[in-house]
Amino acid sequence: MKQSKLFYKTYKESIHSEDSLNAQLLIRGGFIEKVGSGLYNFLPLGLKVLEKIKRIIREELNKIGCQEISLINLHPIEYWQITKRIDKFDILFKTKSHNGIEYILAPTHEEIIFPLVKKIISSYKDLPLALYQINLKYRDELRAKAGLLRNREFLMKDLYSFHINDEDLEKFKSLVDKTYLKIFKLCGLRAILTLASGGTFSKFSTEFQVPTLSGEDEIYYCENCNQAWNKEIIKTSKCDHCKKKLDIIKSIEVGNTFNLGTKFSKDFELFYLDKFNKKKYVLAGCYGIGISRLLGAIVEVNNDKYGIVWPSNIAPFRAHLLLLQYSNKKINLKLIKLANKIYQFLTNNNIETLFDDRTDVSNGQKFVESDLIGIPYKVIIGESSLNEELEIKLRNNNKIFKVKINNLLKCLK
Amino acid sequence: MKQSKLFYKTYKESIHSEDSLNAQLLIRGGFIEKVGSGLYNFLPLGLKVLEKIKRIIREELNKIGCQEISLINLHPIEYWQITKRIDKFDILFKTKSHNGIEYILAPTHEEIIFPLVKKIISSYKDLPLALYQINLKYRDELRAKAGLLRNREFLMKDLYSFHINDEDLEKFKSLVDKTYLKIFKLCGLRAILTLASGGTFSKFSTEFQVPTLSGEDEIYYCENCNQAWNKEIIKTSKCDHCKKKLDIIKSIEVGNTFNLGTKFSKDFELFYLDKFNKKKYVLAGCYGIGISRLLGAIVEVNNDKYGIVWPSNIAPFRAHLLLLQYSNKKINLKLIKLANKIYQFLTNNNIETLFDDRTDVSNGQKFVESDLIGIPYKVIIGESSLNEELEIKLRNNNKIFKVKINNLLKCLK
Repeated sequence: MKQSKLFYKTYKESIHSEDSLNAQLLIRGGFIEKVGSGLYNFLPLGLKVLEKIKRIIREELNKIGCQEISLINLHPIEYWQITKRIDKFDILFKTKSHNGIEYILAPTHEEIIFPLVKKIISSYKDLPLALYQINLKYRDELRAKAGLLRNREFLMKDLYSFHINDEDLEKFKSLVDKTYLKIFKLCGLRAILTLASGGTFSKFSTEFQVPTLSGEDEIYYCENCNQAWNKEIIKTSKCDHCKKKLDIIKSIEVGNTFNLGTKFSKDFELFYLDKFNKKKYVLAGCYGIGISRLLGAIVEVNNDKYGIVWPSNIAPFRAHLLLLQYSNKKINLKLIKLANKIYQFLTNNNIETLFDDRTDVSNGQKFVESDLIGIPYKVIIGESSLNEELEIKLRNNNKIFKVKINNLLKCLK
Repeated sequence: MKQSKLFYKTYKESIHSEDSLNAQLLIRGGFIEKVGSGLYNFLPLGLKVLEKIKRIIREELNKIGCQEISLINLHPIEYWQITKRIDKFDILFKTKSHNGIEYILAPTHEEIIFPLVKKIISSYKDLPLALYQINLKYRDELRAKAGLLRNREFLMKDLYSFHINDEDLEKFKSLVDKTYLKIFKLCGLRAILTLASGGTFSKFSTEFQVPTLSGEDEIYYCENCNQAWNKEIIKTSKCDHCKKKLDIIKSIEVGNTFNLGTKFSKDFELFYLDKFNKKKYVLAGCYGIGISRLLGAIVEVNNDKYGIVWPSNIAPFRAHLLLLQYSNKKINLKLIKLANKIYQFLTNNNIETLFDDRTDVSNGQKFVESDLIGIPYKVIIGESSLNEELEIKLRNNNKIFKVKINNLLKCLK
């Protein structure tokens, strides 16, 4: 992508309306734009990062046998009356059609997926079953805040699993827990598996908490066991396993996994027939990752004083090709030609490249913007490049090294 | 994908609640499921087709320089007050947050993209600009009907373009018109470019109409010129160009392209500075493809008495591997082994394959279901396959031919 054509704008100064670091950096870097409280548009750079996160999630979930579907977001209200959650959730957006049908805007999808599964499965042979979607959610948060961390409309991956008994459900939940840790790691985050309250459904749920000073959660962490407890369920200040004293850490929740038991199966009469042809309730779990929130958390953790430092798997581009310009016009013409050649070469070799081809911007500004945007490798086309040698600058440690054009690909891979 | 694991259910009998062929076939084939009037869930098979359509659209739009973004669906009502469309659109869903903020659920996104573009562009150098998204839309259709053709929540590709003058806008609109014809062709549809009313914005808009008896639109078509006129603007029964008598054809609208003039630029004060530093209004166009509607139209056109006949580019799978079973258990064991081997071979070679591996279903039922689902190639593992020879049956013409296992790949590509 040529930067002269890219739809974006960077801001040098901080954004008055934003109280969080993630929104500051994502708006200043041209990734998102604010529409209203808790409402953001995604610009091309932001969408590219979202798409990479989605791809990682899809790959890992498909590997453990999950199937992707897409559920409706306008929920006829009767489904929510059946589960009685209409009175318990205080974050519901409602709407009504001209002909009187009332809808809930999906804050979650149990009310839709259980009736769907009921239509399709009937026997123990149909289980286990794991279905997920990547879809919008709507929640009327009283105080939408913290940039992408708490929004009124946001992107979520929600997975639901269905089983013949609790043992099979818990086995699958453990597998999802492991998969989640892997997904977060691939996204450049160290998430801590944290035991939390299971709500009305079961004794415990699992949360995935990312340590950061800006987090709104507080967890009790055991360094020895690399596990934590949410403060709502903590009883002592020592680890359950090794008795070490726990550290209190601020953190952001980026995912959770729940054992739902038979709550919704009872509400919607979701049965299966066992081997002896006896009707039994299906056991179910649900597993969420807030994708736009995850993006916010990634930025909260991966940055320096110059801007965002994208983990390489989810960076919007791999290389940022910077064409420098000088007072000598002859040199400039040569550099433009060389930069275009290298841009072609990189894209032909599937290195996703943002090419800062602008000639009406100072070299200094190019570097400042590039640091703000945070692409892992800067490939610098300057005077010294005319000797077949390029400078590469790494975003994560600002180290510079020189590389022959012939070796460029090897170095970026 | 092994069919024994696939989340789907087929129905032999017709679905009482559906009046349209597309919903009949898509529900009976296990692609979608109805939640309420104008509201459908997408099962794995349906989502796979949607994803293929999306990929085609993205590829073609990116080729002509469009950039993908993602806009919010909860629109603060003041944006709709500015354009005064709040009183003109009778299909708006509204909702309200606890703290009193009113929102429109996006039926279209001009109200959001114009303020966004205003924040980012300022000069003639920033134009032309073309931005699109693939996102949900909400429309309170009085009578949601015709399966996927008219829904209350649906998937749409909306593209918006911005220009310095009408000439540049019309040039780009022509390019989009051509690109749309290509997209529909890649999706297996012959769409007819149709002149229609430009509404309040300009004299004409372009519609893309797919001829089919079940269509709710009527167009006047010139066979010579391969162009049509919507009945709302027709004046004579003869072609404007060649004077041939026009045919009246029933059709489904799958896309449209609009010259918006300066309507929204005036509403939101979207200016650019020209070469002489003079402020001028930006000219804009908008271009839509209803993606879930397009899927419905594809099914209305591509089917036979046995089920859906997917155009090959958008079929959920390329090959349907059918394992047949006989009374001779020894033969069955050999066939299972062979089928698994071929399944591995096909997937290793990136042939997307649905493998009907079930052993508790009759051969007849397998063929009936396969025809309903409509995958282009059936690869049949039956008794004769034990001599290294497979039967391939084409879904579009029911022809059968034999192929050596060695030549299988060539034949499926």
